[in-house]
Amino acid sequence: MIRSSETDILRQPSQVAILRYLRVRGPAARIDIGAATGLSPASVTALTADLIAQGLVREIQSSPIPNGAGTVANAARGRPKILLDLVPSAVAMIGVKLTINHIEIVLGNFKGEIDVSRQHVTNTLDLDSDALVETLCHLIDRFLADHKDQLSVRPSGIGIAVQGIADANSGNIMWSPALRHRHIPITAPLMQRYGCIVEMSNDANCIATAITQNDQWHGAGDFAVIMLGYGVGMGMVLNGSVYNGPFGAAAEFGHTKYQPDGPICNCGRRGCLEAYIGDYALLRDAAGLIDLPPAANSLHPSEEQMMELVHLARNGREDIADLFRHAGKVLGYGIANLIALIGPERILITGSGARAYDLMEPDMRRGLREALVAELRDGPEILHLPWDQDLALLGAIGQSLLRYDERMFSVSTA
Amino acid sequence: MIRSSETDILRQPSQVAILRYLRVRGPAARIDIGAATGLSPASVTALTADLIAQGLVREIQSSPIPNGAGTVANAARGRPKILLDLVPSAVAMIGVKLTINHIEIVLGNFKGEIDVSRQHVTNTLDLDSDALVETLCHLIDRFLADHKDQLSVRPSGIGIAVQGIADANSGNIMWSPALRHRHIPITAPLMQRYGCIVEMSNDANCIATAITQNDQWHGAGDFAVIMLGYGVGMGMVLNGSVYNGPFGAAAEFGHTKYQPDGPICNCGRRGCLEAYIGDYALLRDAAGLIDLPPAANSLHPSEEQMMELVHLARNGREDIADLFRHAGKVLGYGIANLIALIGPERILITGSGARAYDLMEPDMRRGLREALVAELRDGPEILHLPWDQDLALLGAIGQSLLRYDERMFSVSTA
Repeated sequence: MIRSSETDILRQPSQVAILRYLRVRGPAARIDIGAATGLSPASVTALTADLIAQGLVREIQSSPIPNGAGTVANAARGRPKILLDLVPSAVAMIGVKLTINHIEIVLGNFKGEIDVSRQHVTNTLDLDSDALVETLCHLIDRFLADHKDQLSVRPSGIGIAVQGIADANSGNIMWSPALRHRHIPITAPLMQRYGCIVEMSNDANCIATAITQNDQWHGAGDFAVIMLGYGVGMGMVLNGSVYNGPFGAAAEFGHTKYQPDGPICNCGRRGCLEAYIGDYALLRDAAGLIDLPPAANSLHPSEEQMMELVHLARNGREDIADLFRHAGKVLGYGIANLIALIGPERILITGSGARAYDLMEPDMRRGLREALVAELRDGPEILHLPWDQDLALLGAIGQSLLRYDERMFSVSTA
Repeated sequence: MIRSSETDILRQPSQVAILRYLRVRGPAARIDIGAATGLSPASVTALTADLIAQGLVREIQSSPIPNGAGTVANAARGRPKILLDLVPSAVAMIGVKLTINHIEIVLGNFKGEIDVSRQHVTNTLDLDSDALVETLCHLIDRFLADHKDQLSVRPSGIGIAVQGIADANSGNIMWSPALRHRHIPITAPLMQRYGCIVEMSNDANCIATAITQNDQWHGAGDFAVIMLGYGVGMGMVLNGSVYNGPFGAAAEFGHTKYQPDGPICNCGRRGCLEAYIGDYALLRDAAGLIDLPPAANSLHPSEEQMMELVHLARNGREDIADLFRHAGKVLGYGIANLIALIGPERILITGSGARAYDLMEPDMRRGLREALVAELRDGPEILHLPWDQDLALLGAIGQSLLRYDERMFSVSTA
């Protein structure tokens, strides 16, 4: 079977395919670029010469492979190889993440790595449309001024990750738990202000983008990534690209239902998965059982509060452990619906809320078995993806880099 | 916005694009073919000449447009126009539909229309793998022998629609309510026997295919079609083609959950939508309230029984009407999950089970409002598609014609 991400690469203009391959795989020899893209050796030589001339790609020497290294072929041993790599400083991208009362700004490079990060605690909830745009511009301007020295080039774009329902097509935030106001245009005013690429998606779609851009995260083929945290998000990659749906706001996994007339959800409806699995739901239920340390921010459970719950669950408080187990069961039922409707090859579970994945997993798998017709059970593999890097911000940078590559080599972006 | 079905057409080899356009739109002038496919007038002339020479396409004269017809441009009035049309007899396709204790065989033409149909009532449930293939071959052979006169060419393919979970990639029936046995290979033995194209999908995916092949059924863009009947099926078209998922068995909408620990479903699990909405579920619940006419087939509700329920519901039996209303509510909750996860442009509801759509619709829309976050409610339109033709068999023929077009003009089918 041809993996969809590979067929997707083949459809790109050749330069874009080469840039994407190098971003996903890291430094690679020309022969491997040819094998992956289907380009002839002569084309690879010509196109990479062009990319080197444009300052986007450079030659590096692989470190000589130490003598006696186990699996290395004799021919390669000890001889440095010429590899091609993206030039990190060729392009600069600004990444922005908007969550409840928290805005993070980062500087990303052409390889999609984050070089600098700056966090701001600020009252996001009361910002209206104009005030939000003003706040973002102010923080971006300050960030650019403070990091002049690291910026060898003017930023080529801004990538934004938003908690909530963001319409990637129109560039509007339709609804976010971070904002009381709704339907806020973001990308249009920022494009007007900065005259560069501006891309916005919800945070889970950004995570899906990040996963497609780095091989280590199992991003080949169709997959769904479920992000547990304050709420429950999901991003899906179908046929090699992030699926946004015709209205730019699909993959609202957290607002599919576990139980009609279930507990109230932050979205205002009842019985959503999130109302059982989200940090706020666990904390709400725990508050009926124990006294918790107070949160600095009354609207958002603190990591300290959540870790206290995990600690209690692991140390004999069966009633608290049951909250995580039940959340696991509800997650299993939700995944069963996802498999019945979409059947992705792989389901990845990540996010800060997966801090107690081990407590949730057995009941998640039991729920899945209970809910899913036997014939569908052998399909997708379900993997836990550790949350040691902020994939949402990497994806925010990544979506702007994808658009940058396309613009550079004039792919139609209809 | 470019409609995905149109971008899809552009990606096809030109001859395939022309054949598909004519199948979807019916007879068309060369200038309209050019406009729809993006081909130059010279290319359209050359390619259609080729298709005419191969006997696949023919010229016909449009009936002269009557004088004074409202919106017609002066230049066209009264002058017959040369249109191109597919030659119906150029290709023959066999369609097969397998449902509980019922096998239907039809003859389809190159335009995708059904010319002849033959129905067989037979005990499908006890057929094992070999017996099912033998039965199908026997019925197909008899059908071919009986309809020699209508067959000007040898059939180029067989298209099969199966109730249940059919893996379109492997060509195996994984599970069907029509069969006690599971994991039955179908397409491989039939291909070996007949040496022609054999395509199999579940019946709802066939319906989705049929809808993409005829403009009158609102098939442009991404859509989902929900088929109500004995069970509840769904087909989805994403980015212009039927979505099968990596395991060939996605879109099992009927087996997503309404309620954990709900009533038992035919699939063996509890609380599936189908266990509330399927004909068998309505009949099961009605049997506790009234005496029903006996069914000829104890395993399958008869149309007579179902119409009796509808009659009672419409004539003062509020308890029976409540069954339909509740099924409507459950359907609304299921559609809310579908919109949250996929957000298609359009959701079509069809099938014999939509016979009482008017009784179900108000509660379906109420359930949808209850379940769906406000921001997603304005998205997809929900339409009832009358069930006056067997779309499953039209789609079974249609999927084989799609494959035939590709084979003729050697598109890679990886």
